[in-house]
Amino acid sequence: MNIKTVALLHPGNMGVTIGAAAATGGARVVWASRGRSKATQDRARQAGLVDVGALDNAVRQSNVILSVCPPHAALDLARSVAEQKFRGIYVDANAVSRATAERIGEIVTQAGASFVDGGIIGSPVKRAGTTRLYLSGARAREVTELFSAGMLDARAIGETPGAASALKIAYAAWTKCTDALVLAILALAAMERVDKALVEEWNLSQPDLERRSVRAAAVAVPKAWRYVGEMREIAATFEAAGLPAGFHDAAADICERLTAFKDRTVPPPTVAAVVDALRASCQRHR
Amino acid sequence: MNIKTVALLHPGNMGVTIGAAAATGGARVVWASRGRSKATQDRARQAGLVDVGALDNAVRQSNVILSVCPPHAALDLARSVAEQKFRGIYVDANAVSRATAERIGEIVTQAGASFVDGGIIGSPVKRAGTTRLYLSGARAREVTELFSAGMLDARAIGETPGAASALKIAYAAWTKCTDALVLAILALAAMERVDKALVEEWNLSQPDLERRSVRAAAVAVPKAWRYVGEMREIAATFEAAGLPAGFHDAAADICERLTAFKDRTVPPPTVAAVVDALRASCQRHR
Repeated sequence: MNIKTVALLHPGNMGVTIGAAAATGGARVVWASRGRSKATQDRARQAGLVDVGALDNAVRQSNVILSVCPPHAALDLARSVAEQKFRGIYVDANAVSRATAERIGEIVTQAGASFVDGGIIGSPVKRAGTTRLYLSGARAREVTELFSAGMLDARAIGETPGAASALKIAYAAWTKCTDALVLAILALAAMERVDKALVEEWNLSQPDLERRSVRAAAVAVPKAWRYVGEMREIAATFEAAGLPAGFHDAAADICERLTAFKDRTVPPPTVAAVVDALRASCQRHR
Repeated sequence: MNIKTVALLHPGNMGVTIGAAAATGGARVVWASRGRSKATQDRARQAGLVDVGALDNAVRQSNVILSVCPPHAALDLARSVAEQKFRGIYVDANAVSRATAERIGEIVTQAGASFVDGGIIGSPVKRAGTTRLYLSGARAREVTELFSAGMLDARAIGETPGAASALKIAYAAWTKCTDALVLAILALAAMERVDKALVEEWNLSQPDLERRSVRAAAVAVPKAWRYVGEMREIAATFEAAGLPAGFHDAAADICERLTAFKDRTVPPPTVAAVVDALRASCQRHR
């Protein structure tokens, strides 16, 4: 297939760089501005994406649709595209469970599209080597070709829709859960008045953990509002497999208590501020 | 106080080295062999501890009692000692919650003893720098003096009974929970047939995790039977503080599924064997 036009739905911080990577590879990359925020419009313009206004225009003009949105919005977006009778390749690159990915696959293939499951691991694409887009499905390899020229490392991992989502879930199951855990532990230690002794012991025997907690507060906490849904998807995936859901239900609970830090990145939250917020939340949970 | 005799109850792999450290400091270290296993007797003999037969002899002869036992046995041991009207310093060095430590403190102080709470962090004492014994309580500093000559780093962290247990709980809340999590994630990835891709991605972006999973299988899994109780104590501590219990309830669940590896250290369990056991357990949990 000679891919000409790719629609990116919708250009968030991560998605816009995926769109830009496809444009580097030679595709015309469009998006649909109707109903999107001013911040999204600015982001898309700066990345050189072509605004075609309404969703139906984007669907009609495109051979490939890339869905990159918050996990809770992924199913609705797939339904909207299916209503437009899209018959190209629909790539869902969101952090959803395998079951949700498979449901999305059913919706878009019933409408006549080919489904490719995707999972993004890494940070927004600003230089080579930082970001992988894993793809699975019968036409996964065609999608990787979109990105052969850019800084995004696109990898096909088989023909099974759902595999890319499962990989993303298994990967995120470590990083975000342990960020939540390390902050919860510091909150516990502070409430028990052993936080100073704990950090001293960490510095003796777990020298990475203090740095890890600083990073969790600064980088993960401003995104905690978004991780709530992702942690619930992971918990559901564990449960469906017969494994305990508790690790990620607990992480979702911690993330919910930290949503007030939404997008506060300048200056980034300190460990002390996050621990104080968790301690305050404990008053309400006891 | 000029400490002369210390009773060690009971000489497990960890405890026997704590007893030996006290002996190096000049104390006479006794233990009570009645009802203990052949393995315990061999261990105590090799460490040069003095066998006084029954518990009441050990209690009568000692100024200090060190309780180092599995967490589920800590309360009963304190009750047995209290029944003997022990009036010296009772040190509970077990991995119990703050609430359990405080209950043990009530039991032994009502019988006339002084209570010192303890928490051991590290491995059995074989060389300097590997093991800390944290102590809290009015007479904590007297207990640290027992160990001033040995390889055990004994540290008093205040007068509040419960602080040392809280510190131990907060510390173990990371290490053992993340061991359980990393193995559960590998089991999930294997069931979803993305385990190979996951380990490749880890090696790109989380280079420590494959090594960590090998270590969790080899070192933590043979002790999983013992961690079940400890994880439940941690979950209870989180819940009492108003934090989610799920991280450690899930870890306890994983540990319960791995009790068949009890004490299998030669050869140590491989990641593949542990993942297979978890996958088999999932059949029963779905």
